[in-house]
Amino acid sequence: MSTTPLYGGIEAGGTKWICAVADAHGHVVATGVIPTTTPQETIAGAVRFFQDHRPLTTLGVGTFGPVDLRTSSPTYGHIMATPKPGWAYADVVSPLGAALRVPVGLDTDVNAAALGEWRHGAGRGRKTIAYLTVGTGIGLGAVANGRLLHGLLHPEFGHIRIPHDRTRDAFAGSCPFHGDCLEGLASGEAMRRRWGQRAENLDDPMAWELEAEYLAHAVMNLTYALSPERIIIGGGVAKHAGLLAQVRARAFDLAAGYPATSVLTDRSAMDAYVVSPSLGDRSGITGAIELGMRCRP
Amino acid sequence: MSTTPLYGGIEAGGTKWICAVADAHGHVVATGVIPTTTPQETIAGAVRFFQDHRPLTTLGVGTFGPVDLRTSSPTYGHIMATPKPGWAYADVVSPLGAALRVPVGLDTDVNAAALGEWRHGAGRGRKTIAYLTVGTGIGLGAVANGRLLHGLLHPEFGHIRIPHDRTRDAFAGSCPFHGDCLEGLASGEAMRRRWGQRAENLDDPMAWELEAEYLAHAVMNLTYALSPERIIIGGGVAKHAGLLAQVRARAFDLAAGYPATSVLTDRSAMDAYVVSPSLGDRSGITGAIELGMRCRP
Repeated sequence: MSTTPLYGGIEAGGTKWICAVADAHGHVVATGVIPTTTPQETIAGAVRFFQDHRPLTTLGVGTFGPVDLRTSSPTYGHIMATPKPGWAYADVVSPLGAALRVPVGLDTDVNAAALGEWRHGAGRGRKTIAYLTVGTGIGLGAVANGRLLHGLLHPEFGHIRIPHDRTRDAFAGSCPFHGDCLEGLASGEAMRRRWGQRAENLDDPMAWELEAEYLAHAVMNLTYALSPERIIIGGGVAKHAGLLAQVRARAFDLAAGYPATSVLTDRSAMDAYVVSPSLGDRSGITGAIELGMRCRP
Repeated sequence: MSTTPLYGGIEAGGTKWICAVADAHGHVVATGVIPTTTPQETIAGAVRFFQDHRPLTTLGVGTFGPVDLRTSSPTYGHIMATPKPGWAYADVVSPLGAALRVPVGLDTDVNAAALGEWRHGAGRGRKTIAYLTVGTGIGLGAVANGRLLHGLLHPEFGHIRIPHDRTRDAFAGSCPFHGDCLEGLASGEAMRRRWGQRAENLDDPMAWELEAEYLAHAVMNLTYALSPERIIIGGGVAKHAGLLAQVRARAFDLAAGYPATSVLTDRSAMDAYVVSPSLGDRSGITGAIELGMRCRP
């Protein structure tokens, strides 16, 4: 048992839950990993981890989704319809709060990552930032005016429509709902289906040039729609060497200097505008801890 | 001279400035219209209007742009590069504040309209709303978490890229920067150039079906990017009878029920989601007054 209060966080993913406790400054003092099996088993595993690390003051959860975030809803804190066996309509928040007797802050995994980067990483000191994750799917988290962006639903930016370059790209798109939306054209899953191999094994320059084209449209639509001060691009696909440099170059061309703000008129300012997460793979867990701290009693 | 404090607002447009004073509840008690000539003349006209309506407590200005809104900038409150004769780099805020000796709140015309609708109109009681204006150009204002959305710049949503339907539409687009961005395909100016006549005189159903297609893409990209609880569509083009109904129907189809939120799965909920401004042509001046009230000392 620690002598100082601890703040817990869970990055609740579809294959594993990462649990961590931090001190009041957000410095992580212990972590644990629990495989995602059934909701009962997984939650019980997390509870055991936090029971070993007390006194726990708050807990924050950044979870895979879709998840009900409307605090007024009877299914607040429940996972919604999901193909993941056993998890459809599973209550995540109440069992954790009841077992650990702490307030539980909740948001999506990608909003947690956005918050982590905003509080301690590449978005620090900015008012409005966006965190785009490009992995198997494409997701967006955003902090606007210092608060996580929520409205009708959490942003589903992966499903925006962008121009489909049919001259270079005959692939119809992989999104089961929309076909050639952004996610349908540029996610890891789209790359795998278009090129017949996983993104991490792809080294055809044409494949990555096309990927940069679509992500540059994502960057510019995000710029024109949300006007963030910085766009952080994380996720497995975004780790490909040289991709972000191509995205910046193409986004700069697409903007054609409009409007006349430095990022869009000064090529080196664009380099500081579209960046990798400075917390690396720790954006999510860092933000999850912060989600808990924000509901400190 | 009034016995109660008054709150002033200016909807500063490129052809006229609408000035108004309201009581503490936001009820307008007097209005005036000043033609937009030179900055000196126009500002002097506005100052005279407000000097006749005292005691003035605050002033809010929703202005045409581009305008520098960064409070830390040496050119805060100045119009930036504009083709409008005499107005490039004109200081709007300081002369008004100095002459009237009141705090001056400033934002873009379309953010003022968004604020007006959020405070007193179709967006009342919501956390996050978007106001899209479709006139000669296309602009977006948004209130997120109860505050006007600002970041790197005010949103330039008119310049997002959407799929260009080349089968139906051979027009290359009217945007001098991007060609076939949203504004280049769907603004009043784009319609005029594509069809050879002004939108208000157009009655070819094909023209309006195409317009609805592009605006439906705007609605869905806005939904996926910003996730507002309501989208208000104003501006001259949006007044065309039946257009909004077509936009809703097409947006509903484009969403394909994803994600499973009522607006995208229940056709009648979509009717309440995409709406006309309930303040009609008064959204902008109502919001301008509110911009001033927000800097009440």
